[in-house]
Amino acid sequence: MSNELITKGKQAKSVSRKLSLLSSQQKNDGLTAVAEALVERENEILEANKKDLKNAKEKGITGALYDRLTLTHDRIVGIAEGLRTLINLEDPIGEVLWMKKRPNGLNLGQKRVPLGVIGIIYEARPNVTVDAFGLCFKTGNAVILRGGSEAIYANTKIVEVIQHALESVELPSNAVQLLEDTSRETATKMMQLNEYIDVLIPRGGAGLIQAVVNNSTIPVIETGVGNCHVYIDSDADINMAINVAYNAKTQRPGVCNSCESILIHKEVLDQVVPPLINKLKEKDVEIRGDEAIKKYSDTIIDASEEDWGTEYLDYIVSMKSVDSLEEAINHIDQYGTKHSEAIITNNYEKSNRFLEEVDAAAVYVNASTRFTDGFEFGFGAEIGISTQKLHARGPMGLKELTTTKYIVYGNGQIK
Amino acid sequence: MSNELITKGKQAKSVSRKLSLLSSQQKNDGLTAVAEALVERENEILEANKKDLKNAKEKGITGALYDRLTLTHDRIVGIAEGLRTLINLEDPIGEVLWMKKRPNGLNLGQKRVPLGVIGIIYEARPNVTVDAFGLCFKTGNAVILRGGSEAIYANTKIVEVIQHALESVELPSNAVQLLEDTSRETATKMMQLNEYIDVLIPRGGAGLIQAVVNNSTIPVIETGVGNCHVYIDSDADINMAINVAYNAKTQRPGVCNSCESILIHKEVLDQVVPPLINKLKEKDVEIRGDEAIKKYSDTIIDASEEDWGTEYLDYIVSMKSVDSLEEAINHIDQYGTKHSEAIITNNYEKSNRFLEEVDAAAVYVNASTRFTDGFEFGFGAEIGISTQKLHARGPMGLKELTTTKYIVYGNGQIK
Repeated sequence: MSNELITKGKQAKSVSRKLSLLSSQQKNDGLTAVAEALVERENEILEANKKDLKNAKEKGITGALYDRLTLTHDRIVGIAEGLRTLINLEDPIGEVLWMKKRPNGLNLGQKRVPLGVIGIIYEARPNVTVDAFGLCFKTGNAVILRGGSEAIYANTKIVEVIQHALESVELPSNAVQLLEDTSRETATKMMQLNEYIDVLIPRGGAGLIQAVVNNSTIPVIETGVGNCHVYIDSDADINMAINVAYNAKTQRPGVCNSCESILIHKEVLDQVVPPLINKLKEKDVEIRGDEAIKKYSDTIIDASEEDWGTEYLDYIVSMKSVDSLEEAINHIDQYGTKHSEAIITNNYEKSNRFLEEVDAAAVYVNASTRFTDGFEFGFGAEIGISTQKLHARGPMGLKELTTTKYIVYGNGQIK
Repeated sequence: MSNELITKGKQAKSVSRKLSLLSSQQKNDGLTAVAEALVERENEILEANKKDLKNAKEKGITGALYDRLTLTHDRIVGIAEGLRTLINLEDPIGEVLWMKKRPNGLNLGQKRVPLGVIGIIYEARPNVTVDAFGLCFKTGNAVILRGGSEAIYANTKIVEVIQHALESVELPSNAVQLLEDTSRETATKMMQLNEYIDVLIPRGGAGLIQAVVNNSTIPVIETGVGNCHVYIDSDADINMAINVAYNAKTQRPGVCNSCESILIHKEVLDQVVPPLINKLKEKDVEIRGDEAIKKYSDTIIDASEEDWGTEYLDYIVSMKSVDSLEEAINHIDQYGTKHSEAIITNNYEKSNRFLEEVDAAAVYVNASTRFTDGFEFGFGAEIGISTQKLHARGPMGLKELTTTKYIVYGNGQIK
């Protein structure tokens, strides 16, 4: 196994014990120092980023990927601001969730503690480097980052800035470490570094997440893939239905909580489909529909079986007529990714059935799926959106980066 | 992939939706019917068990393993009683943990729901078959069981009895299914059945658990291995220290929360070691010590490096002198399995440091590690003891077999 991995793994494990004992004040001082340093040393970071951008151009990287890789003055200020917002959030570490006296006199409590060492594997977004550090540091965790090779210059510089800033306020710089070796082989080995890493969080596209799930022997928090539906029921308020479906699809199509598929009860097709098509055309949304939907416009493309299961992350939507709530729920069960699902209805019974029977991280009645987000949910921060069921489900804030331990006060109890 | 796995996986997934909607009354009726049927059909179960026992003898299985495989009238009555205790426990499903109104008028709540389909891989203990069914059924989960080949006759019969009893009260019999194919290959394939199984829980020895952790692509709840320490501080009440160490080691040495290693501050060696050795000799406990310990008796064997990391699960204990609390904590950090750790001290500062700095599922002051147990902790049930940090840590009761989903009530909110 690579020396770098083992060295950094050991250092992370060793420093995690120190981090777990830091006071909230110390952690906030660290965040402040880092936020200030990022802005002060902006030019160095932008210089490093230029090298990444030059390499990216040579590799033919363009469009959204190039944009995500790009740092600017405004973006660095925004990243530093993001760190500062963490300062005002309550530190979850040390909270005793409950304590009770057992019949034998033992005082038994459950206390919130850091996870220990968190590994984060992500793609070409240098802002994640700061973000992930901030969330892990605030929660007393050490973090090992493995970013994409495309961002290696910016990431290396940013981590150097963070480490230096932590040292300047006498905090352990190894709280954050970046893997310099960005090979796929080393990433795979990192996924099996159970001795030093407690939890692995992949942040990126479906391919990256799948690779981590398949290869990791470390517990993983799976994030992100969202094939989200809006189901427009026969008892829907038609205007509301059109507004919500339009918003869920077009307000920001590139994110996981955007709508990819609209299901419409057959009884309201005439009322819903024509105005909805018109509205979606305002933003040039490509519509792929079944036979019933296609009747409403020549511009609608045939939806294939594959379409129902596709997360477009683009100005494309699939649209399907359904005979009943039952069919809508079954369709979601078959093709959904258990992320965010919405029903539009004024029917009490059907709204309850949808909330009960749809198996997803977030289930909505009469609202856009776009609200599934740590900030919208009031957590003040977000490390990602879990689409699995263990540990955390839905938007993950600071609490989701913690675990608990039982603390037991006795006076000689034996069994 | 084996047809059996896919068929049973599909059936489990399909039935899990129905199970999630059952009322507590329906689930309790099912548990009652199964408890009664197990006792009524005791003879059939004992007959099946006899075949397993005959095979076991032929294979040369003896001792504790043979004992665990053996069913008797009393054991079946006990197993049925265990199911009945679940009836009185509060059903965790449907509880809304919190609900709040967001600034935009959305009512956002977090609701407890079943995990879905749970896979349990275990060894030759037919009682686990009933136990696992009961806990999963009470929490609205479907379960796929893969028991050891040694218990296949008893397990097959028990599952038949459970399924028949569920049908008799019009509940879905596929709530529990047993894999008839007990090959290692099929077990490995089961660990990768992500499409149908939401969570995998191994119950058994270290080898089984390691195999599941290494091979599973499904999220795993790791259970059980416990290399637990009792640290006797220089400020300990000497009598209490001896009683607790003796109890933690000898009250039931074969379980994961028993003590495997006793650490003693050098300043109290003279007071602690001679009486502790005498007491341990009452139960013929073999002591493996370092140089400082060995001075107290010729019967003490040299402890090797390997001893510090060994979970004996037997009447054997390792014993070590330490110079400080710091050294004790470092030793536990290096050799412990993050299960249960205890300090015996009357020193305020040192008790707090131990509670804060020792990273384990349960940390004790002045009490035996033997209390780490779902029943002792007041959960009324236990599916195992998690030694990992995600989802559940420490004894797992009914709540640990659930997840949550966010439910969101809107009136047309868009972003």
